[in-house]
Amino acid sequence: MASDTILRLPGTPGQFAKAVVCRDTAYLAGIIPNRWEADIAGQAQEVFSRIDAALEEVGTTRARLLSLTVYLRSFEDYDGFRTAYEQWIDQDALPARATVRADLRDPRIRIEIMAIASL
Amino acid sequence: MASDTILRLPGTPGQFAKAVVCRDTAYLAGIIPNRWEADIAGQAQEVFSRIDAALEEVGTTRARLLSLTVYLRSFEDYDGFRTAYEQWIDQDALPARATVRADLRDPRIRIEIMAIASL
Amino acid sequence: MASDTILRLPGTPGQFAKAVVCRDTAYLAGIIPNRWEADIAGQAQEVFSRIDAALEEVGTTRARLLSLTVYLRSFEDYDGFRTAYEQWIDQDALPARATVRADLRDPRIRIEIMAIASL
Repeated sequence: MASDTILRLPGTPGQFAKAVVCRDTAYLAGIIPNRWEADIAGQAQEVFSRIDAALEEVGTTRARLLSLTVYLRSFEDYDGFRTAYEQWIDQDALPARATVRADLRDPRIRIEIMAIASL
Repeated sequence: MASDTILRLPGTPGQFAKAVVCRDTAYLAGIIPNRWEADIAGQAQEVFSRIDAALEEVGTTRARLLSLTVYLRSFEDYDGFRTAYEQWIDQDALPARATVRADLRDPRIRIEIMAIASL
Repeated sequence: MASDTILRLPGTPGQFAKAVVCRDTAYLAGIIPNRWEADIAGQAQEVFSRIDAALEEVGTTRARLLSLTVYLRSFEDYDGFRTAYEQWIDQDALPARATVRADLRDPRIRIEIMAIASL
């Protein structure tokens, strides 16, 4: 077995880490918003802020994002998501991305994003 | 092109490998249960056992998990999944995790998990 | 922060890269077909061609695929997908794979694949 160190940021106790880093690659948990009554712009902005915070905690930034998997509750929110995303993402450092529709843990949650980044 | 060796564990012939290892990172196939009549506890436990077996075959353990993507057929199974998961996962080595609802290959399949681990 | 170079292939301007490469690992965007009226065989073949092209652009091939996440609009297309996939995939280099059902950005889109490959 390799012995490279694995760093784990505390997330939801008993369940999962907020982010796990191994060999300079950071795997973030699926990030959802806390304010479930917000519209897609508000929920997306909160998710982006939480991704920024997790990336900062492991010592990197959105300019080092590699890949995003975006789950939307409804494609009716796609344009709202895209607009908020364009304002947030580093236009000189676009990650790979897939966007699919999926029901999330609570019907009020409109968006969940799972990210992979490099340190 | 890089020449790092890629190890592939036999899975479903003609279709996919059970796990693929490159540069000490193991990518597991989406693992589903074989016993499709079991409840969520039974199906989750079987999936966990099969993940353990695949990890062991590539020379690592659940203590080196980095990231899990969990697909549940229904969030009605979420609590049952969480309970089985808490008993299985290494509490000192929680991976990043996303959990979304998705229909799986057969309506009786309640759970599928795709894992990334480090050797 | 690490300083490993990240290569980004242009994809959809303002939104995402077609592929991102870091430390010899290539993360491809979710690849969809352009011809939305085609049946599953046609859509799958187009997706495979586009994956081949993206892999070639970053200097690798389908023989170095590590992991695929396949989203199908309907499992009625599963057999058609499998047949097209068997003809395309390198039988000596099967990747890990998960296949789940998900609604995609347009109801005519039957398949989207997100791939990870090694250089």
